[in-house]
Amino acid sequence: MPVTDQFLIRIAVLQEELNRALAELDLPETPRYLYDPIRYVNTGQGKRLRPILVRLTGEAFGANIADLLNAGLAVELLHNFTLVHDDIMDGDNQRHGQPTVHKQWDESTAILAGDGLYALSQLLLLKVSVNPLKALRRFNETTLAVCEGQGFDKEFETDSSITLDHYLIMIEKKTGNLIGLCAELGAILGNQSEATNQALFNYGLALGKAFQIHDDVLEITAEPEIMGKSLGSDIKAGKQTILTILAREKDAGNWGQFCASVDTSDETNLCLAYRNYFESTGILDQAIANAKQYGQQALDLLEVIPAKSRSVLKEFTELVLNRKK
Amino acid sequence: MPVTDQFLIRIAVLQEELNRALAELDLPETPRYLYDPIRYVNTGQGKRLRPILVRLTGEAFGANIADLLNAGLAVELLHNFTLVHDDIMDGDNQRHGQPTVHKQWDESTAILAGDGLYALSQLLLLKVSVNPLKALRRFNETTLAVCEGQGFDKEFETDSSITLDHYLIMIEKKTGNLIGLCAELGAILGNQSEATNQALFNYGLALGKAFQIHDDVLEITAEPEIMGKSLGSDIKAGKQTILTILAREKDAGNWGQFCASVDTSDETNLCLAYRNYFESTGILDQAIANAKQYGQQALDLLEVIPAKSRSVLKEFTELVLNRKK
Repeated sequence: MPVTDQFLIRIAVLQEELNRALAELDLPETPRYLYDPIRYVNTGQGKRLRPILVRLTGEAFGANIADLLNAGLAVELLHNFTLVHDDIMDGDNQRHGQPTVHKQWDESTAILAGDGLYALSQLLLLKVSVNPLKALRRFNETTLAVCEGQGFDKEFETDSSITLDHYLIMIEKKTGNLIGLCAELGAILGNQSEATNQALFNYGLALGKAFQIHDDVLEITAEPEIMGKSLGSDIKAGKQTILTILAREKDAGNWGQFCASVDTSDETNLCLAYRNYFESTGILDQAIANAKQYGQQALDLLEVIPAKSRSVLKEFTELVLNRKK
Repeated sequence: MPVTDQFLIRIAVLQEELNRALAELDLPETPRYLYDPIRYVNTGQGKRLRPILVRLTGEAFGANIADLLNAGLAVELLHNFTLVHDDIMDGDNQRHGQPTVHKQWDESTAILAGDGLYALSQLLLLKVSVNPLKALRRFNETTLAVCEGQGFDKEFETDSSITLDHYLIMIEKKTGNLIGLCAELGAILGNQSEATNQALFNYGLALGKAFQIHDDVLEITAEPEIMGKSLGSDIKAGKQTILTILAREKDAGNWGQFCASVDTSDETNLCLAYRNYFESTGILDQAIANAKQYGQQALDLLEVIPAKSRSVLKEFTELVLNRKK
């Protein structure tokens, strides 16, 4: 099912609304050490896919729009908190084409800004009028799962025995859980049954895995200016992606030879060499097939929810799976 | 009023109970990257004054003991989260006689451990059976205030125009708010009126200021092995303490001369020189008088709460103000 222009316009309107709400968040002026970087993060670029998923799911279940906006802002701030801290841990200098907080200021500033974002996100979520305790509990369980995912990611950096199963557990925790939470929050705020909440979470979990695998693919195939961060930074850091793991599992001999012989002195050449390797061996196609498989799983999981709530989420799924950046 | 032996025994029993509960927190084994440092922090030394204050206040108001334990653990984990991150920002290598998390592991590990502690603290607080939403809201408002306090503290490091008023705002946010929250949580969990909750918060706020000023005094007067961290590290980092600010405000000429001439090559001599300066000029006595003043303010603020709830908090106040480490 192709994504309709009508849906794309709807998404653009929601993005605009969220960007405005993020820019207008009522924050104190001082201490500027804390609030300047928080404002910088909140007004940065971002696709706002997570709060949009909260909104679309919640609308499908008749939730209160003000609640969906507050919960959406909460998940966006939570997401930004994890990005600010992950960027320090991973030594990433660019995010959405801008210097990361620890580059624009320093690491101490970035640590504190992340902490403040997390506190602010809870205060936003506490404003919801329906099932706030359930929402808060799932919000923090998810945050802990995201921390676990980042813990696995850091452990895996230096471990070449990681299998596809390890990788899938890692991205399920690091990426899948938060996207699962977004869909689930829409159901929770729409006062749905536990079974429906869980179904929505499972949908988001599968979609999140598809999203992350697609991200790994985009990382190696997109142009640097489209990705908005230095392409191939993950390669240099020794980060595990679905591509490196599939290469090791399915093409061990050639992969070992390739890694030993590739010229690492020029970043552009390095990326092109990796791209050629993944394309010519079919590894790239296997990864794309993997993303499609989880995308289909997400769509199948939607069958358990009422038909009238399904179509908008199907379209959202297509949008996520076909994004070019 | 002297602290009775009976009260000291009561405190020791509560410390023991909290240490056991912290050691027995039900945490997953993996990823060890996340949970090993969290376990290390939870089983480290600590006076547990904050959860004890939650417990004593809550008991005075007839709160449920299981709720007080969960809320106490939540504030202790929140406190530890801020310490782990502050230690990175301040470059402190020792805490309670042990290497700090970023020294024992590295900065990335410490950032993630702090984040995980904060998520866990919320999940513990969500277990309380009385007024959980109010508790959660105050918990996160306090966290944001603590972040603001740390933001001011970092701004002040390099600013020699900071006055006593600036310093008091900073410690009120960084230390006072959390101790205020502890007393207030006892009232919230005891289902008290807004007025009583607020009175308890104000008591803790004043006590927290007394506590921090006392801490600044101990930093310069105690032996290194008693303080459990390298004495004088704050001096070297250019941290503002009540002593340096009083010296600048009340004894500018001599203070400038002293700072210009003091020998910074040997840490022990450096500390002794500062101690001699603060003692001989009466600055130390002024700081002690300041701590006593806020301690008295805390005691006075207790007058608005029922007499039967007052005595245990008076004794706790004396304990905090007379601690030697």
